[in-house]
Amino acid sequence: MRPELGVCYYPEHWPETSWETDAREMRELGLDWVRIGEFAWSKIEPRPGHFEWEWLDRAVSVLGEAGLKVVMGTPTATPPRWMLDKHPDMIAFDVNGRPRKFGSRRHYCFSHDGYRGESVRITELLGERYGDNSYVRAWQTDNEYGCHETIVSYSPAAALAFRSWLKEKYQTADALNKAWGNIFWSMEYSDFTQIDLPNLTVTEANPSHVLDFRRFSSDQVVRFNRAQCEVLRRFSEKPLIHNYMGRITEFDHFDVGKDLDIASWDSYPLGFLEDRSDQDDDFKHKYMRQGDPDFQAFHHDLYRAVGKGRWWVMEQQPGPVNWAPFNPAPLPGMVNLWTWEAVAHGAEVVSYFRWRQAPFAQEQMHAGLKRSDNEWADGAQDVRNFVSELSEISDINLQTAPVGLVFDYESAWAWDTQPQGLTFDYFKLVYDVYRGLRRLGLSVDILPPSTTDFGERRLVCIPGLFTWSPELKKAVSKFSGQVLMGPRFGSKTPDFNIPETLPPNVPGFACKVKSVETLRPSVVLPLKDGGGIASWREFIETSEEVTEKTEDGNAVLIVKANIWYLAGWPDDEAMIRLLGEVAKKSDLETFPVEGGQRRREFGPYVLHSDYDTGEIQIIKK
Amino acid sequence: MRPELGVCYYPEHWPETSWETDAREMRELGLDWVRIGEFAWSKIEPRPGHFEWEWLDRAVSVLGEAGLKVVMGTPTATPPRWMLDKHPDMIAFDVNGRPRKFGSRRHYCFSHDGYRGESVRITELLGERYGDNSYVRAWQTDNEYGCHETIVSYSPAAALAFRSWLKEKYQTADALNKAWGNIFWSMEYSDFTQIDLPNLTVTEANPSHVLDFRRFSSDQVVRFNRAQCEVLRRFSEKPLIHNYMGRITEFDHFDVGKDLDIASWDSYPLGFLEDRSDQDDDFKHKYMRQGDPDFQAFHHDLYRAVGKGRWWVMEQQPGPVNWAPFNPAPLPGMVNLWTWEAVAHGAEVVSYFRWRQAPFAQEQMHAGLKRSDNEWADGAQDVRNFVSELSEISDINLQTAPVGLVFDYESAWAWDTQPQGLTFDYFKLVYDVYRGLRRLGLSVDILPPSTTDFGERRLVCIPGLFTWSPELKKAVSKFSGQVLMGPRFGSKTPDFNIPETLPPNVPGFACKVKSVETLRPSVVLPLKDGGGIASWREFIETSEEVTEKTEDGNAVLIVKANIWYLAGWPDDEAMIRLLGEVAKKSDLETFPVEGGQRRREFGPYVLHSDYDTGEIQIIKK
Amino acid sequence: MRPELGVCYYPEHWPETSWETDAREMRELGLDWVRIGEFAWSKIEPRPGHFEWEWLDRAVSVLGEAGLKVVMGTPTATPPRWMLDKHPDMIAFDVNGRPRKFGSRRHYCFSHDGYRGESVRITELLGERYGDNSYVRAWQTDNEYGCHETIVSYSPAAALAFRSWLKEKYQTADALNKAWGNIFWSMEYSDFTQIDLPNLTVTEANPSHVLDFRRFSSDQVVRFNRAQCEVLRRFSEKPLIHNYMGRITEFDHFDVGKDLDIASWDSYPLGFLEDRSDQDDDFKHKYMRQGDPDFQAFHHDLYRAVGKGRWWVMEQQPGPVNWAPFNPAPLPGMVNLWTWEAVAHGAEVVSYFRWRQAPFAQEQMHAGLKRSDNEWADGAQDVRNFVSELSEISDINLQTAPVGLVFDYESAWAWDTQPQGLTFDYFKLVYDVYRGLRRLGLSVDILPPSTTDFGERRLVCIPGLFTWSPELKKAVSKFSGQVLMGPRFGSKTPDFNIPETLPPNVPGFACKVKSVETLRPSVVLPLKDGGGIASWREFIETSEEVTEKTEDGNAVLIVKANIWYLAGWPDDEAMIRLLGEVAKKSDLETFPVEGGQRRREFGPYVLHSDYDTGEIQIIKK
Ligand SMILES: [Zn+2]
Ligand SMILES: [Zn+2]
Ligand SMILES: [Zn+2]
Repeated sequence: MRPELGVCYYPEHWPETSWETDAREMRELGLDWVRIGEFAWSKIEPRPGHFEWEWLDRAVSVLGEAGLKVVMGTPTATPPRWMLDKHPDMIAFDVNGRPRKFGSRRHYCFSHDGYRGESVRITELLGERYGDNSYVRAWQTDNEYGCHETIVSYSPAAALAFRSWLKEKYQTADALNKAWGNIFWSMEYSDFTQIDLPNLTVTEANPSHVLDFRRFSSDQVVRFNRAQCEVLRRFSEKPLIHNYMGRITEFDHFDVGKDLDIASWDSYPLGFLEDRSDQDDDFKHKYMRQGDPDFQAFHHDLYRAVGKGRWWVMEQQPGPVNWAPFNPAPLPGMVNLWTWEAVAHGAEVVSYFRWRQAPFAQEQMHAGLKRSDNEWADGAQDVRNFVSELSEISDINLQTAPVGLVFDYESAWAWDTQPQGLTFDYFKLVYDVYRGLRRLGLSVDILPPSTTDFGERRLVCIPGLFTWSPELKKAVSKFSGQVLMGPRFGSKTPDFNIPETLPPNVPGFACKVKSVETLRPSVVLPLKDGGGIASWREFIETSEEVTEKTEDGNAVLIVKANIWYLAGWPDDEAMIRLLGEVAKKSDLETFPVEGGQRRREFGPYVLHSDYDTGEIQIIKK
Repeated sequence: MRPELGVCYYPEHWPETSWETDAREMRELGLDWVRIGEFAWSKIEPRPGHFEWEWLDRAVSVLGEAGLKVVMGTPTATPPRWMLDKHPDMIAFDVNGRPRKFGSRRHYCFSHDGYRGESVRITELLGERYGDNSYVRAWQTDNEYGCHETIVSYSPAAALAFRSWLKEKYQTADALNKAWGNIFWSMEYSDFTQIDLPNLTVTEANPSHVLDFRRFSSDQVVRFNRAQCEVLRRFSEKPLIHNYMGRITEFDHFDVGKDLDIASWDSYPLGFLEDRSDQDDDFKHKYMRQGDPDFQAFHHDLYRAVGKGRWWVMEQQPGPVNWAPFNPAPLPGMVNLWTWEAVAHGAEVVSYFRWRQAPFAQEQMHAGLKRSDNEWADGAQDVRNFVSELSEISDINLQTAPVGLVFDYESAWAWDTQPQGLTFDYFKLVYDVYRGLRRLGLSVDILPPSTTDFGERRLVCIPGLFTWSPELKKAVSKFSGQVLMGPRFGSKTPDFNIPETLPPNVPGFACKVKSVETLRPSVVLPLKDGGGIASWREFIETSEEVTEKTEDGNAVLIVKANIWYLAGWPDDEAMIRLLGEVAKKSDLETFPVEGGQRRREFGPYVLHSDYDTGEIQIIKK
Repeated sequence: MRPELGVCYYPEHWPETSWETDAREMRELGLDWVRIGEFAWSKIEPRPGHFEWEWLDRAVSVLGEAGLKVVMGTPTATPPRWMLDKHPDMIAFDVNGRPRKFGSRRHYCFSHDGYRGESVRITELLGERYGDNSYVRAWQTDNEYGCHETIVSYSPAAALAFRSWLKEKYQTADALNKAWGNIFWSMEYSDFTQIDLPNLTVTEANPSHVLDFRRFSSDQVVRFNRAQCEVLRRFSEKPLIHNYMGRITEFDHFDVGKDLDIASWDSYPLGFLEDRSDQDDDFKHKYMRQGDPDFQAFHHDLYRAVGKGRWWVMEQQPGPVNWAPFNPAPLPGMVNLWTWEAVAHGAEVVSYFRWRQAPFAQEQMHAGLKRSDNEWADGAQDVRNFVSELSEISDINLQTAPVGLVFDYESAWAWDTQPQGLTFDYFKLVYDVYRGLRRLGLSVDILPPSTTDFGERRLVCIPGLFTWSPELKKAVSKFSGQVLMGPRFGSKTPDFNIPETLPPNVPGFACKVKSVETLRPSVVLPLKDGGGIASWREFIETSEEVTEKTEDGNAVLIVKANIWYLAGWPDDEAMIRLLGEVAKKSDLETFPVEGGQRRREFGPYVLHSDYDTGEIQIIKK
């Protein structure tokens, strides 16, 4: 495979006279792909049923004739203002019960039937018109599902749809009462119509109620996306893509991914470090011009899994953005480093957002490859360097990584619902394990919880799993590599009850979590051999071998044959040491790195990237 | 008196086949009491007017026949879902004007007449059925009034009821206008129907308006509880109890207590340290497994006063809970220490919450005496130890404590309404005095503001009193022990005006507070002899003796005969020193303690508890 | 000019029998002016259309006959309760869509036509009755526009009015779409009725939309105030005044000022330090009894500009207030220092708030010159000292200051709308420049953005200007003194687009801002010669002379002839050094001061005030 570059472009923002020059300059810079259309609904259909396709036809032609491959986006993330006159109740509601008004984007509720119909209608028209167009070489559905917390909606439309979903799942109110344990506080229902959304309750709602609402909310996204995919497949054989966002866990990306051919994500290393990282202020200060050294890699690995091997960066940060709390400029060379990091994780395409900085509206302070006065912006030089460096690399064929790490969206919803301690966060837990692996120099594959076979891998980690799936049970049982489970593993039934046997509930592994505790941020429980446990700790009853204890004498790492159980959340030092111990048993060679240094194997190469300095080295193994 | 133990049990959560074993094991553990029923409305009355009593009859029999005494709870804290169809407007509203929805508990407004009627109806049915039952030996009304901030409701029902309450109090709008000083910003009313609840005003509402609303809100709880008590007394001669929560000041516990025979409270030392303590992070870290050394003692003393001498711990934390920001495990032995602390303060019964950890619904991560897999949890051993230690103690008859401390709910509402400085909090002020006394090794009685006689005590402290009651004036005037008043004492008229003579307004005591100031947390005004004044300081005009000044020359402690006035809020060091000074004048022996050590006299014994290590010693005097 | 003193008085709060004594004591203290009436609507018109004027007639007489000059306030900041029955929809709505209820003050929306009619009606009646009264010597319109965030209202009335305002401005929806760049996210409108207020959008609204709403909101205040002024001018030749508040930027004070004869403001140095200062906790601790040494001076200079040379302090803090998070007492002598600071900046009148502390309602803990028991409060002595010190001073005639500083309300709205970094605040930026100038010992005139001539000044600073006005362009082009522009200067077109040429867009000055970055609070980019850039930094393309660079080699200060451009936000050290450098080029003598020392030239005098000690010295030049 040979990676390619692309860019996001908005012909509707610029005079038609500039399109040809823009297209030529894209090609000259070394770009192959151009994404268009995803916010252009009001330009295509300025009044309901009145269409203006000609400008878009011409844009596709001009771009295609210049040699660019077009990704056409469905414009459903930005319904025009007239849509609200047709469907006044299509708006999502926030957790406080307030409608989320028109005036920006993503102003729709996934549960609104009328709007889903409109989404199908416009997709159909696009499919019909461009399904066979030889310049249109891929499709993007909608844009950034979940951005601006738009998955979980408390609208009347959502309430209605939730009741149907529950009825479908449980058939009878009695079955639901039993599954949820509604006897607890006299919360029993006699009819599905009595069930409300779980916001604004006096104290916390039943976790089974909340988790079902979160499952439902995710399913609504899948259903919305699937409707577009089904339409597009009727008209086009080009691959379907969605562009996911970083650290959005409100819907199941694997489930949406089942309807796609390629997964992609929008990678904004500096914006994400500022606005969605758990790291402390010192870390954010240190990496403000580089981004977190592991955040991009993690998502690259995640979306490779979501895309069943095929994935892109659909939007790559090219300079300062406008939307984070603080928006510094990247270190010189970082745009190049980020591009290489993507390629080393198997990206087929890295597409920059955006071609030219828009001088108007919400994102006027967001850098492009060109400035708003049409001069080259600083990021363009990094792209030129990448193109020249890439020409010295032969084809890239990724191998299976020696390490697997299971990521499970349902677990994220479960522990959102019941963190038990303020600082417990599923993403953070999995990400801490990921960082530990990467600091050991290991390349990682992220695996969905539906994995039934871990293959030739040597080590699989499964932290924080809400509930055992039959698939995972099967994968574990036939695996001969090391499996590291825990903490908080298999700790519930699918109905959000504690299993009768207590967690972790691993067949043949004599180990029970008799109770757990959560800890304030200042507390670290030291381990006998260094490092410590923070945030979450389990008290264990076991007759298996204990290889690691806290100084207060409690088991932390338990092993039997190739099964390991971790009974707490290790801090950085302990994480690296414990993972190292398990890796050793796997006969897995580690390559510990320091500071901001990282390594990633890709095909016959190793990428050495240094996030402290912004430098990279590509070495042939 | 011989203290007994109990437990909270939910037969409706478990198969009927397990009840007998559970009951036998309770007795074997040494428990005498079992509380049931308080969340079981939907099980008793699954549909409006359709009742299922048999299961409850059987549960009472099984428990009673095993030798347990039953506390029967009225289930009014958890109205079933169908109740909302009968009374859609019964829901409380929060300060932002949002209804507080069904789906957890306490989803009712105390001002809703219809729901109060329902509460009387179900109580009547329970009274009728179990009033004479020989196994039912006490009643609990509702559950934890005030938990989840459910006292102060801004619902339409509350607005209507508030207008009636005001009309009753003031008779005419003119009288109200005058009392409130509504001339101030043209806030005058011509009719009671014009008066709204004091939320969402442009800037702060009139403090007289707010305080009356807070008085009204408290009265609604009293009225709600009284209605249940009146019904129960018609059917039963068993004692009536309510289980109060820690640090809830939104209603007058003394007023509710007038209708009860016994006060009780729910003591969660670790949960309360995390979720409602003013202490800093270092303190919370240090005592995360022990709880605040004075918090339980304070409430024990408070509820002894509320119960006019008779009080229980109705729910005692037995291990980690699920509802605080962080939920650590107690130190080994702490459940035992907490039980002894209660007994040393005169508890008749200490009842653990709960028998077995529920594997479902909201509190599935809340420990019980048994685990959800029915093995013994760690706390059970502490109970066994307590039972064995108690057998070596003869009967306990508490004496009157040498020190009295007045606690006044109305003052809490007043200073909530007008803190004047962000950090001024009435509970915190009284609690700081309490802690100072306890660090001097003194045993304390808490006194209601209706006290007319301080008895044989040697010292009475009255910090932060909103307004002088005639009762207290009488008690002070005939008392020969030392009285320490202030800071912020007697500083308002009942209508929330500054008294004409200025505070503290003590007859025969030539001392005026000419102005006050509030201070940022970093500011401490040093005293000449050590320690300092923080948060609140008064400027005094006096001709009485000044025994203590700030370094900047302002009077802090003023005395005439047995009357002392404290013109600021001392820090810990100053508090102990100043209290010690006054105690000395009282000829009161003090026993200063260090760190987490505490002492409490009870009958012929002294309990020495060490919250640093979790150890106790009981010494015969 | 000879400055005078005054006081705010509420005859309606006190028995009529005390008025005469109060008036006599005011005169004895040295006061000339008394402001009354501004909250008395319910006393004047207790029922709609029913008037009680006699008490006010008598109050005016008693005060006037004692020799006091009366300022009569229109009572429109406190509409009586019955007004809401006439106009239930007159209430403002907050950004969350909640109505802001009756029960305090300022409970009206500036966009409500009905209430503006009522405001005109009551003003007319007051004008008619007192327009010729010889004791009434000035008028105050309403009270503290903008206090309690009451300018920006999201009410239905505001939405209607905003649509009209937009229609008036743009004529067609197409013109608006183009100006706002609504093509960006398919936000195009086909009709003005489709446009909503820009709150509660899913993510940020279009900045052009928000800025127009802010302009509109300011215009509504101007219109409301103008309606009162037009009425009063029909009946009275006395000067019209409004009392502005400190650091309120939600409406254009210059625009409102155009309809007034005198500007005034309400100066609460300690309250403002606590509740609206950007300074850190150490600073607030240090100056808790003095106030920020520059905050009062800045506003004095600002309102001198707003009043076109004529200005007062209408309310001067005389002791502790009640409304800040913490309310300490001033240092002895501070009330005197504050009065002198005002006089040294040209105040015609300094009027204390209030005569006597009210013992009731919201402000009962707000000090007056007299205590609520009618004894003198501490502040009164400072007033006596001032009166005696003033008698040794001859007439004060302010000269034009050598330095001008442009303050532009529209820029404040623009950077509120698009801060680009959390800590970017226009007021803070201008104020940092002001403080730098004052720490160089320079006296400053604040200039509106409509200034067309900088006169004889030697240096003019224009930080953070949203967009170049033709007036300022003219003023700069004909000015021979030094002009220091930037950072973030001229960076947008009036429609909130980036200008085609890029900022700063200064004719003949070869300098472009190619991009910007915002920085976390911990980041300081060091300058080669000391100090650094924080919060905001620009990357510059220039062929002009660069006199200052960051250590990382980027231009920070660029100069050509008398035009300077500053490409970042200097910290305190860099600010003083860079301003000093530019001042030197201006041949301007500087007088650097240390710590809390400040100097201000006024006529033939220099006031040396020391905010560390509270001492002042007045020296004849
Ligand atoms: Zn994007
Ligand atoms: Zn409880
Ligand atoms: Zn004021």
